[in-house]
Amino acid sequence: MTDLVRVPVDEHLALAIRVLTGLGVPEAAAREQADLLLEGDLRGHASHGLRRLDMLAQRLRNGAARASARPKSTWTTPTVLVVDGDAGLGPPTARRAIEGLLGRIGETGVAVAAVRNANHLGMLAPYVESMASAGVVGIALTTSEALVHPWGGTRAMVGTNPLAVAVPVPGDHAVVLDMATGQVSRGKVLDHAARGLPLAPGDAVDAAGVPTTDAAAAVGGAISPFGGPKGYALGLVLEVLVATLTRSALGEEVRGTLDATDPCTKGDLFIAMDPAAFGPGKAAVDAYLDTLRAAPPAAGHDRVQVPGDRARATRAANLANGVPVARLTWARAQEIAADVAGRD
Amino acid sequence: MTDLVRVPVDEHLALAIRVLTGLGVPEAAAREQADLLLEGDLRGHASHGLRRLDMLAQRLRNGAARASARPKSTWTTPTVLVVDGDAGLGPPTARRAIEGLLGRIGETGVAVAAVRNANHLGMLAPYVESMASAGVVGIALTTSEALVHPWGGTRAMVGTNPLAVAVPVPGDHAVVLDMATGQVSRGKVLDHAARGLPLAPGDAVDAAGVPTTDAAAAVGGAISPFGGPKGYALGLVLEVLVATLTRSALGEEVRGTLDATDPCTKGDLFIAMDPAAFGPGKAAVDAYLDTLRAAPPAAGHDRVQVPGDRARATRAANLANGVPVARLTWARAQEIAADVAGRD
Repeated sequence: MTDLVRVPVDEHLALAIRVLTGLGVPEAAAREQADLLLEGDLRGHASHGLRRLDMLAQRLRNGAARASARPKSTWTTPTVLVVDGDAGLGPPTARRAIEGLLGRIGETGVAVAAVRNANHLGMLAPYVESMASAGVVGIALTTSEALVHPWGGTRAMVGTNPLAVAVPVPGDHAVVLDMATGQVSRGKVLDHAARGLPLAPGDAVDAAGVPTTDAAAAVGGAISPFGGPKGYALGLVLEVLVATLTRSALGEEVRGTLDATDPCTKGDLFIAMDPAAFGPGKAAVDAYLDTLRAAPPAAGHDRVQVPGDRARATRAANLANGVPVARLTWARAQEIAADVAGRD
Repeated sequence: MTDLVRVPVDEHLALAIRVLTGLGVPEAAAREQADLLLEGDLRGHASHGLRRLDMLAQRLRNGAARASARPKSTWTTPTVLVVDGDAGLGPPTARRAIEGLLGRIGETGVAVAAVRNANHLGMLAPYVESMASAGVVGIALTTSEALVHPWGGTRAMVGTNPLAVAVPVPGDHAVVLDMATGQVSRGKVLDHAARGLPLAPGDAVDAAGVPTTDAAAAVGGAISPFGGPKGYALGLVLEVLVATLTRSALGEEVRGTLDATDPCTKGDLFIAMDPAAFGPGKAAVDAYLDTLRAAPPAAGHDRVQVPGDRARATRAANLANGVPVARLTWARAQEIAADVAGRD
């Protein structure tokens, strides 16, 4: 394990907010960005946690992320919200878009937001969970830099293109899916390379497109799509779907979430559907989930999980015990904060 | 290979239409059902082809499928179409629902149809392709009998829950995804069991929940989710999503697509989104697809394919050379036709 410190939630939030506001981000937007960094660490996805603060600070300084962005939102039809993020931070832009959908959906039953020209969203789950908390089915899609090779190909040409879905369940927690369409995350490849650990077979290919378990070789290669040809097809169609509706970039033209200087050219799509608008009656989802959770586990498994169960448990434990952050990440965040304060 | 005959398209359609109209299905609906059976065989998915005619005929005779169904469609909001299929055939019910969406979407940009109480749809690709032909992004979801075990579980509790997406691409063919969330199809398990062929590792488990490559053992067991825990999570969230919006059954309560007598309790969801409603500009999807198709293939692969390419090529070859149908299936379909004619 990486050397971890346990940070109180308030300190985690306060440090990120101090850096962001110090770089000119308005308080409310800084809070929303800090909250997404917190959620990454709370759920055990450090690559979407405080580790991103360094890159965000660089992007804000370079103007690749605009501290005082003024996103432009247009309802092009009663159900379609088109957002140009004005190069602003991802979380506040997305939060406004989702608020727009939730404000509209009581009337329409369905609404869709297409966002472009906004920075990295972080974990997708919190966005769809906020829709589910309002009783609404939420779907979130975003594209990413080309890190995944096509099935049958040799080099990275497709994004990791994550997909999140939350379905509210009366009488139970929401069912929450949040998955990328790559077999492993870029963060894991980098982490294993730094620590000399192998990857699993099928995780990645090297620079020549040959399957490898050598994480260092995979850094210069590509991540494999999850689930073979089906996972490739899913990831690709999501990339094309998001680009088509948001008019954003594709493949190697997607930039700006892994570098400090380039404009952010990916797109984000949010779909909200209100079960209450679909007529009378209800499905017995809660009973079904109970049956799944009570099912006998296979050898080597503790239990059958419903999507969202594990992340919820991890998050609750980390809320209770302190947010796990790599010691180096925490130290670096404090350096950045000191540097930002020094420039004031 | 199974012993195949090559059947002219017209004969394939005519035989199915004769059986269906002989059982009381109106001509237009019979054509739409026959067309879906044809599409299954044209694309090399025999389990969705003429092989289903026997079961369909039994269901029509038993009243589990209603020949003269009168589906009831209600726009509950300007963008939400709720359909009770009145136990009718799947394809005509779905075709009317999609026509409804396409008639509405010019105004709204987005529209969704939730269908319940309709019979098996067959291949999903033709439905979303018809939306893409109208310039619209199409998404189709349907639930199925519980054939897949949850990740970490031992028995079949989740549907194969296929997902189809078609994204229209100006200047190119649509990108078309049509995939089930099981690692293999039930048809393949049954086929391999009948022919004494093994499955691949990871395809299925036996009745005790132990992974097996013995297809005969897998018949009494369960199909594994594709792509491990991610594929399970995807399949499950799609099941819950469809059930929530269509008020249909879940897990082992889903019946009526693999048996001759039970009411069809699954649900179908269709989502249409019109790219033209999402403001000015367009994404460079055609150029991106060209880059993918021109990419160097990995060892053991002929080329990089875009989702939909292979099915389109298979379909075109079968249109030219005759529809491949197992000799036994073709003979059985003729017996059914003779039997139906004899009862008149």
